[in-house]
Amino acid sequence: MQVRVLVRLKPGVLDPQGRAVHHALEGLGFEGVEDVRVGRLIELDLADGTDHDTIKAMCERLLANTVVESFTIEGAA
Amino acid sequence: MQVRVLVRLKPGVLDPQGRAVHHALEGLGFEGVEDVRVGRLIELDLADGTDHDTIKAMCERLLANTVVESFTIEGAA
Repeated sequence: MQVRVLVRLKPGVLDPQGRAVHHALEGLGFEGVEDVRVGRLIELDLADGTDHDTIKAMCERLLANTVVESFTIEGAA
Repeated sequence: MQVRVLVRLKPGVLDPQGRAVHHALEGLGFEGVEDVRVGRLIELDLADGTDHDTIKAMCERLLANTVVESFTIEGAA
């Protein structure tokens, strides 16, 4: 089974990478960019039947730093 | 409008970060992990009505290195 984990910085946490991308888009002439946030996309190919709690444990123990990051799990059974 | 861009390494391109995560998950005792790929999540807050071609141009010119990465745009009008 394919599972997608999205890891984002929590609101209020400074995102220098996002600011750099925002600035660069404006420098390239793109208008109307109001905000940019950069996070991680982690695609897991897991044994069928892996339960949501196991995936959540993977996120909490390794994939996300829950002090400053939040995560969402998509595509789990 | 909120747009989400997912940037992934193309199939066949070595993903050392994904391998490291895979190895670490096994080291933590998680079983049944078959593959892990790590990419980037870029969340854009754009002016309403920004068209798909503009967002595609942002990806091709800045957000993704299309030599080794592919991108998908989600949530665009």
